[in-house]
Amino acid sequence: MRALAGGLAELGIESGDRVGTFGWNHHRHFEAYFAVPLSGAQLHTVNVALPDDHAEYIVNDADDDLLLVDPGEPFETVERLWDRFEGVETVVIMDESVPETDLDCAVAYESLLDASDPVTEWPDLDEDQPAGMCYTSGTTGKPKGVEYTQKMVYSHAMAVMTPAALDVHEDDTVMHVVPMYHVNGWELPYTATIAGTRQVYPGPSPEPADLARLIEEESVTLTAGVPTVWINLLDYLDEADADLTSLDRIVVGGSAAPEEVTRRYRKEYDVTVEQAWGMTETMSIGSVSRPRAEMNDWSPDEQAEVRAKQGLLAPGLQMRIVGDDGEAVAWDGEAFGELWVRGPTVVEEYHNRPDANAASFEGDWLKTGDIASVDEHGYIEVVDRAKDVIKSGGEWISSIELENALIEHDAVIEAAVVAADHDRWQERPVAYVNIRKGAEVNAADLRTFLAEDYPRWWLPDTVEFTDKIPKTATGKFDKKALRDRTDDVDLAWTPGE
Amino acid sequence: MRALAGGLAELGIESGDRVGTFGWNHHRHFEAYFAVPLSGAQLHTVNVALPDDHAEYIVNDADDDLLLVDPGEPFETVERLWDRFEGVETVVIMDESVPETDLDCAVAYESLLDASDPVTEWPDLDEDQPAGMCYTSGTTGKPKGVEYTQKMVYSHAMAVMTPAALDVHEDDTVMHVVPMYHVNGWELPYTATIAGTRQVYPGPSPEPADLARLIEEESVTLTAGVPTVWINLLDYLDEADADLTSLDRIVVGGSAAPEEVTRRYRKEYDVTVEQAWGMTETMSIGSVSRPRAEMNDWSPDEQAEVRAKQGLLAPGLQMRIVGDDGEAVAWDGEAFGELWVRGPTVVEEYHNRPDANAASFEGDWLKTGDIASVDEHGYIEVVDRAKDVIKSGGEWISSIELENALIEHDAVIEAAVVAADHDRWQERPVAYVNIRKGAEVNAADLRTFLAEDYPRWWLPDTVEFTDKIPKTATGKFDKKALRDRTDDVDLAWTPGE
Repeated sequence: MRALAGGLAELGIESGDRVGTFGWNHHRHFEAYFAVPLSGAQLHTVNVALPDDHAEYIVNDADDDLLLVDPGEPFETVERLWDRFEGVETVVIMDESVPETDLDCAVAYESLLDASDPVTEWPDLDEDQPAGMCYTSGTTGKPKGVEYTQKMVYSHAMAVMTPAALDVHEDDTVMHVVPMYHVNGWELPYTATIAGTRQVYPGPSPEPADLARLIEEESVTLTAGVPTVWINLLDYLDEADADLTSLDRIVVGGSAAPEEVTRRYRKEYDVTVEQAWGMTETMSIGSVSRPRAEMNDWSPDEQAEVRAKQGLLAPGLQMRIVGDDGEAVAWDGEAFGELWVRGPTVVEEYHNRPDANAASFEGDWLKTGDIASVDEHGYIEVVDRAKDVIKSGGEWISSIELENALIEHDAVIEAAVVAADHDRWQERPVAYVNIRKGAEVNAADLRTFLAEDYPRWWLPDTVEFTDKIPKTATGKFDKKALRDRTDDVDLAWTPGE
Repeated sequence: MRALAGGLAELGIESGDRVGTFGWNHHRHFEAYFAVPLSGAQLHTVNVALPDDHAEYIVNDADDDLLLVDPGEPFETVERLWDRFEGVETVVIMDESVPETDLDCAVAYESLLDASDPVTEWPDLDEDQPAGMCYTSGTTGKPKGVEYTQKMVYSHAMAVMTPAALDVHEDDTVMHVVPMYHVNGWELPYTATIAGTRQVYPGPSPEPADLARLIEEESVTLTAGVPTVWINLLDYLDEADADLTSLDRIVVGGSAAPEEVTRRYRKEYDVTVEQAWGMTETMSIGSVSRPRAEMNDWSPDEQAEVRAKQGLLAPGLQMRIVGDDGEAVAWDGEAFGELWVRGPTVVEEYHNRPDANAASFEGDWLKTGDIASVDEHGYIEVVDRAKDVIKSGGEWISSIELENALIEHDAVIEAAVVAADHDRWQERPVAYVNIRKGAEVNAADLRTFLAEDYPRWWLPDTVEFTDKIPKTATGKFDKKALRDRTDDVDLAWTPGE
């Protein structure tokens, strides 16, 4: 870390500069997580899986001075976009050597370190000095950059370490599965380091077999990632033999973990799946769901319901649920509105985006764009994204609730629900459903199935069967693409009447 | 809390004012801990057991505008000193009613709250706004005031909550035994609140019987205090029956817990005694001693040795051990020097004391005045206070080590060791020893006893037998008084040669 900081200084990186990274989860990237901000420069982690246009926009908008890049596809992306990058002067390949390339400015990470004078005294930095930078992978408009100060990185690491959030102990072994380019791996490299844990970095694109092997070999106790990763691991474990005894808990975020997945980990592997909520604007983790002491005598089912929520706000944060009328709604588990949060780990603006700031911030409050309710115990339950909620006849229909309900049907693999415009009801839900091969099910069957739990006016007017639901770079349904397509759907059936 | 803030506002307290308290541990004092700083005013907790001169000096130096005072002795002190207080305008008695008094400005806490308009919107405060104030009970010179900002209170509560410090969980029940006037009860009311625990306040001057009863009745899991309290509780438990099953750990600070006490709690009550270190200048807790994961397979004795140290620095702090030559010494468990610390919970100056600042601070480093070594695992061991260490023939003798060694002798109840001036050796140790009734032991016996573990030149030249070793208001040996007395002792025996 000190050698890297020395090397970066020799390449001209100074306090206030930005260092971009295109990298997976490994020890060199970890060293950069500390060497860059400790030098007073700003670490800008770029998603290696972005479309070229986004990567170009992000590197130029951040005005990166130097890039740390993994060999392979990430470096190919950088080579391909090189002429379109405006301010980058040097590329450091995070490897022993530089692959064959026309880029004269490329140097190998290990050569740089071998030749460097390690930093012995870190500069004394202001706590408001920028330390990190990430871009939201918005599905609409240009990506938006947010900046994290030194103090924010510290505050987030401390808050997440506490028992009120992830409860990270010095004797934990943390495996970093969240890509380090995704909200800085949920900032967990910082949390794990300040907590003093052992850390395991699985390298580029780990497969379920890699994760299972690492958990066993390294006695991993704590890991985190989006639900898909853990669903895939479950599938792998059905076929393969692996010892997960050491593993205590998996933190999931990005979207909600299906109840079945949580249940199976608990029953078959004695692993707790903990639901978390957060955004790029909250430095990832902003809430975690875990039953409180007063719920100790609740039934397993009731506790599972608590765990399925987005949970209690991390310590240090404040929230409000703001209704359509701009007023805070009651914390009764019923009323919902937009979730607003503020606190030491919440950004107060976007980089270079006064237009977006006006829509997303009010004073020091971040308007999260998540539609949520809060129950009497303080547990947040996100019911939808503000832009995805379906506004029908003056009431709101949660697209996420319908999607989760559809997945409960045996024939359904995945389901996305979006709004279609409607003259009378303003909006009506339309479902895109991917069903198992050979299953026989039609729209009426699914409506009948949903009608067991939902009122008639919630039922999707149209169900489209498709095995290609469009997805974004981070694996979420691309609801913008679906809405664009949905504008043309014919609403033949209007059960709302 | 909102009602108290409303009441204080009606009494003219505004952002920037100081509110002093003379109070024990109870719910009204707890309400003041939050209502005062949340209103933007500064909470100044005054030790109720101070000599009059100190109390007068402190209230005037802090320029308190209003006092919250317990009935009984604390209010008697305030009445007695009333004419000597310069800026105090109102006294609120933390009770249902006002005792008989000539003080016209005295109002009862509960009447104030009944009549008040509870605050509904807290002001938006700057994080650097002062929130708290405490005075060190120095044995030399005037007491020195330190101020804690809003951010410091938050940072300390978060750091202490983490598993790397006290590991305070929402399902803990914390009993506050540290007086709330002593470094704000080690700031634990803030930590316990942000952690969401149940809290137990035992009221004025709790006796061991009160503590035992409360632990049992309230299922206390975590408590803290100076060693004397827990020694007295052990003595009480030897005679009485009490169920301590719920109790998990006792945090001790102020001075080191005798090993025997730690061992007895562990063996007889399955309670872990955790040693902590801190100062008023570090907002109390700055380190906690607990074996690390890598020590899991160490023997119980080796682990007990680790637990007896002052421990690992709390997360967010940095330290240096500075030798006589001003250079940092090695972390080898052998070399010692003065412990310097800095970080978000360390003050950088005293209130109104440029003279003292020069001696105690260097940049943002606090020179703690504690002489310590740090081992290769990072554990601090405080061997003495800088002003108490005995400098003899160019070497240092730890007064604390000698005191602890003397206590190991069956006949010795307590022992204080101080330096006497000496022409040839600069300083030589002199011991003041309190022995059990009827025990027969003389100076030569004790020197022989000590010689088993210590070199000849460490042995005290003179041993004075007394059952009245002078103590400070906080129960520590008053070494200044002892040194003043020691200047006249005749050094008849000089084993150093």
